[in-house]
Amino acid sequence: MNIISKGELLNLTQQIFEQAGFTEKDANHCADVLVFADVRGIDSHGVARIPGYLRLIEAGRINPNPKFKWNIRKSTTGTLDADGAIGLISASKAMERTIDMCDQFGSGWIAIKNSNHFGVASYHATLGFAKKYMGFAMTNASPLVVPAGGKQRMLGTNPICIAIPGKDGNDFILDMATSAAANGKLEIAQRSGLGIPKGWAIDKDGIETQSADALKNGGALLPLGSSDETGMHKGFGLGSWVDIFSGVLSGSAFGPWCPPFVAFLESKPNAPGKGLGHFIGCWDLDGFQNSDVIQENLKIWKESFIQSEPVNSKIPVMVPGDPEKKLQQKREKEGIPLNSNVIKTLEKICSKNHIKSPF
Amino acid sequence: MNIISKGELLNLTQQIFEQAGFTEKDANHCADVLVFADVRGIDSHGVARIPGYLRLIEAGRINPNPKFKWNIRKSTTGTLDADGAIGLISASKAMERTIDMCDQFGSGWIAIKNSNHFGVASYHATLGFAKKYMGFAMTNASPLVVPAGGKQRMLGTNPICIAIPGKDGNDFILDMATSAAANGKLEIAQRSGLGIPKGWAIDKDGIETQSADALKNGGALLPLGSSDETGMHKGFGLGSWVDIFSGVLSGSAFGPWCPPFVAFLESKPNAPGKGLGHFIGCWDLDGFQNSDVIQENLKIWKESFIQSEPVNSKIPVMVPGDPEKKLQQKREKEGIPLNSNVIKTLEKICSKNHIKSPF
Repeated sequence: MNIISKGELLNLTQQIFEQAGFTEKDANHCADVLVFADVRGIDSHGVARIPGYLRLIEAGRINPNPKFKWNIRKSTTGTLDADGAIGLISASKAMERTIDMCDQFGSGWIAIKNSNHFGVASYHATLGFAKKYMGFAMTNASPLVVPAGGKQRMLGTNPICIAIPGKDGNDFILDMATSAAANGKLEIAQRSGLGIPKGWAIDKDGIETQSADALKNGGALLPLGSSDETGMHKGFGLGSWVDIFSGVLSGSAFGPWCPPFVAFLESKPNAPGKGLGHFIGCWDLDGFQNSDVIQENLKIWKESFIQSEPVNSKIPVMVPGDPEKKLQQKREKEGIPLNSNVIKTLEKICSKNHIKSPF
Repeated sequence: MNIISKGELLNLTQQIFEQAGFTEKDANHCADVLVFADVRGIDSHGVARIPGYLRLIEAGRINPNPKFKWNIRKSTTGTLDADGAIGLISASKAMERTIDMCDQFGSGWIAIKNSNHFGVASYHATLGFAKKYMGFAMTNASPLVVPAGGKQRMLGTNPICIAIPGKDGNDFILDMATSAAANGKLEIAQRSGLGIPKGWAIDKDGIETQSADALKNGGALLPLGSSDETGMHKGFGLGSWVDIFSGVLSGSAFGPWCPPFVAFLESKPNAPGKGLGHFIGCWDLDGFQNSDVIQENLKIWKESFIQSEPVNSKIPVMVPGDPEKKLQQKREKEGIPLNSNVIKTLEKICSKNHIKSPF
């Protein structure tokens, strides 16, 4: 582990994206999204993703200079053809557009097609916080997850994010995969040489497995709920919702046709749409009641949960977004610890591109 | 079991609600919502609920003649004070209002306070199907579910419903509790004298239990995800989202203050709001792309899942809403089988109210 300051990591990331052909402004934005994930402890969605993005850019699957085409069909709804953009950019642009709709009408919704991985959903979903807008963000993803009762990889880990601005940063931010466990957790288990808990994955025959190599060996991830008895049809339903909103509404690929995140895998042929899809939107808190009243009640809501009796008296109940917020406060002060493999890869990128390494 | 036709059950239910003080129109609507649940096999939310509703009406906790107060603050957002109405009525009225918003602006959203149990979420969420509007419905509920890491009952089984109209009834309807299992499933296990699966409930000390009497003995339900390892913080996050949107946005009670569904239990004192809350809304399919294109792709989406390889070759993969639809087609033709206890209770209500029993 090596600690790097937020400022240094932003600077490094921006330079890498500029070298890869992004405008200064877009490179700056990409850095902002990725480092936001790292400071909040969502390391799987931070700068560790850079090498993968670069390979997709080289393979021509991410377009560093996209021309966005908007199709706004109603006052509060429309689609964006992102022209192969990285989702880090397209999802934020769409959120800006829905914020404009929200200014005028109280809510706004954009479905995005022909996009790529959008990083951490909560970045985009919190962009309207200064205006007290609640954010909503979803994306479909490379197929890794089975439907309830199925053994084929049909859905991505398809996250849902809902972000509600509180007073003085007392927010509620839910940002969750709709699978029982994210792929990143299997990778950690692989590296540690340990098995995985029951309920995360099945093998290629559809049998539950505790092998961390499940995916490598042709298996798949299970939806949230994990088994018939404990409600895997619900996790499947949620992942399906995300896929339909992100893919079917927008005109992107969906389900098993979603393009893989890795450059060495090709997409399934005859896709019914283009690229990955996202669904983005927001509501104005003040559209429901005076936002001060809502935020006061949100504070009461949060306190009632945090103060409720925990199972383990040493581990208080936590509310969605609070663990990430604590880490954010710590890492913004003390710097961001990076995995040594991530550092090695970033150093290689630096030397290849004549960027001064901060490590 | 006794079979009754849909028409007879509608007629009976309408008469009971009229006798309880509802207008003919409202009684007709309540019958429509409850029988919709019964024909779709969601028996826990059908006419079996009538005795409970009647007790709440007698106790003055459901107002059969409410005066609705709307507070529309933006073009697409607002709240409804339902004046103690039954949710069967208030949620549908709110959906009608959001459909009007959707006609003009492409989407619409109402948070409802001072309401009661709204029956089956999918009834309200599908009200815009004729116009090709996608529906959204949530409600908070009597506290039975613990937060992740907690042992107090803080949330209801807080359902989420998302309903997407397909061509020729080829819809997608997800209507799910955010707990691992609904309370009704525990009741079925109690009646059968069998235990319950791991992952549904904990006892009063927060220890996982397989006793069907868990709730009776001071225990609680677990959120979807069931354990730390398999993502119960996600189910908790979803239930929290529902509670904040239904309760905190609207000004109803929320969390542990939600009023119990049974008349013999009082609400927790000092509630921060009034009654139960719901959150209702819709989006116009045509607001994103030509709705014919979307519905064509939704058909491809559904077929790809239904035709994907199942774990058990005899049980094909099913898509949310399809099992209920099959049952609906069957029961609309062949009639609705009712549990003998439900029939006995309905017969008692008939004789008390001088209604001719159809049984």
